[in-house]
Amino acid sequence: MNELTLPGFAEVLAAAARIASHATVTPVLRSRELDALAGASLHFKAEHLQRSGAFKFRGACNAVWSLDEVQALNGVVTHSSGNHGAALALAARSRGIPCHVVVPEGAVAAKLANIARHGAQLWRCAPTQAAREAECERIRQQTGAELVHPYADARVIVGQGTAAMELIRQAGATLDVLVVPVGGGGLASGSLLAMQALLPDCELILAEPAGAADTARSLAADRRQIDFVPDTVCDGLRGALGAPNFALLRSHAQVITVEDADTVAAMRLIWQVMKQTVEPSSAITLAAVLAQPQRFAGRTVGLLLSGGNVDLDALPWSRA
Amino acid sequence: MNELTLPGFAEVLAAAARIASHATVTPVLRSRELDALAGASLHFKAEHLQRSGAFKFRGACNAVWSLDEVQALNGVVTHSSGNHGAALALAARSRGIPCHVVVPEGAVAAKLANIARHGAQLWRCAPTQAAREAECERIRQQTGAELVHPYADARVIVGQGTAAMELIRQAGATLDVLVVPVGGGGLASGSLLAMQALLPDCELILAEPAGAADTARSLAADRRQIDFVPDTVCDGLRGALGAPNFALLRSHAQVITVEDADTVAAMRLIWQVMKQTVEPSSAITLAAVLAQPQRFAGRTVGLLLSGGNVDLDALPWSRA
Repeated sequence: MNELTLPGFAEVLAAAARIASHATVTPVLRSRELDALAGASLHFKAEHLQRSGAFKFRGACNAVWSLDEVQALNGVVTHSSGNHGAALALAARSRGIPCHVVVPEGAVAAKLANIARHGAQLWRCAPTQAAREAECERIRQQTGAELVHPYADARVIVGQGTAAMELIRQAGATLDVLVVPVGGGGLASGSLLAMQALLPDCELILAEPAGAADTARSLAADRRQIDFVPDTVCDGLRGALGAPNFALLRSHAQVITVEDADTVAAMRLIWQVMKQTVEPSSAITLAAVLAQPQRFAGRTVGLLLSGGNVDLDALPWSRA
Repeated sequence: MNELTLPGFAEVLAAAARIASHATVTPVLRSRELDALAGASLHFKAEHLQRSGAFKFRGACNAVWSLDEVQALNGVVTHSSGNHGAALALAARSRGIPCHVVVPEGAVAAKLANIARHGAQLWRCAPTQAAREAECERIRQQTGAELVHPYADARVIVGQGTAAMELIRQAGATLDVLVVPVGGGGLASGSLLAMQALLPDCELILAEPAGAADTARSLAADRRQIDFVPDTVCDGLRGALGAPNFALLRSHAQVITVEDADTVAAMRLIWQVMKQTVEPSSAITLAAVLAQPQRFAGRTVGLLLSGGNVDLDALPWSRA
């Protein structure tokens, strides 16, 4: 995929139509208490209430329903630490086609259970990017399944963009700034496409774990920096920024890097005050806002809560 | 209070108008997965998203705003293991009047923090009904504050009834059965008033912990059975059924008693599938439905999720 084939807002609109009968229009949540704490007007897009428990269903569903009849027969394959795998499994089931998911050792148990529950076939591999890709390629060759990459895929990017599109339309106010978690960049780059078309004056801020801050470094260097070993509680944000994602985001977004301790505190706050079980990769958006209050004071802020698939037996505040 | 002064639906309507500018119209949540699991159509009234984190705000708010100007000056006093105390504190603050809350030793830490956060003065007492009432009476005489009992109070009962009224109007379907948790019976008796007026053919089922099953015994004997020592994880349902609550509910409701293990399993399910942090006293409604599936199969069921004030450091499935 090169820059000539980067998707645009027209494809986001097409994706919205394609997934409309499958995906949930998730609500936008508000909290007086968190508004008071942040000194800003916060609009939380509740993608943890999306089918499969994460926004990932949007992109997966768009990819699955974009396949022609012949392609579809062989099913789909991907690698995923969790949410994308579950989303692709559920999307494949919605079309009645096979789904193969390569999962790295060490993935969150609740997420693996989610994938299996939705009927996909699981394949284990070592927790490296190279091992994931090699195993995917092996299965693709063996089965003829179509690869649906978790983020470096135009169909996935535009599918994810439908969440920000909905948020902008639902918020009932003009957002001054949109805060989106960034890992591989599928959600971030899709959100950018929606924002540029619908709300061009809105600022895009990416919230990234300090222990996996390749996007911050990539944007600063204006060149992808993909050699790093992620170390963060945000299990959904450990991937490296993808090539098409970087191509879309460069010079259009700023990054706030967030310490895990702040993310865990924000997660606890969302559970306690909003009564929503979001995962660390969601809570990082609120943590970013609370870490730099002067940057958001008095503004109308959209925050993408990306998912809620948490291992209830291993909550981050109860670990040693 | 005797039967001649029992409230009716007209008072529920008046309460709805009185609290309209203070209370949240909470959403009704659905879940395909839980519908499939129960074999029924489940409509969850999300009172854990109510202000103060529980339906209790409705009754407290109605009581506070029912006071005349002179009465209001001296404030309000109550005893509460948690949610009613926090609700009354917040309601008193909404009118700018003092609030005193007597809390029994052993109450959930998160709930005490909630009460204090909303600006009430806390008074500790021994964890017995007699000690609670004695301390309340002492404060009432000393300050002239108006007693707002957590459930044996007509203003509170009709305030709580507004939740079921909303649910019946929001559900978008005719409910066959309404499942409500029962402790002191404020929510249960208020729900009955709304149901009898708006949906007289609907069945009312009370979900009660097996370790505090005085309502089941009281309805069976047609006489209040209030001598018992509660032993249940449902900290909001440990109180004894009140006299006016019994007078309203007798011969109009059935009880399903639920084991704590089933309640905890249902709570975990709601957290995991619906991504909502509800407390055990809420989850008992789903536990009741899942415990007697044949009773609910194919029916349209309303379930009152009563609150979400949980101690995140002491989740029931992580206790020894």
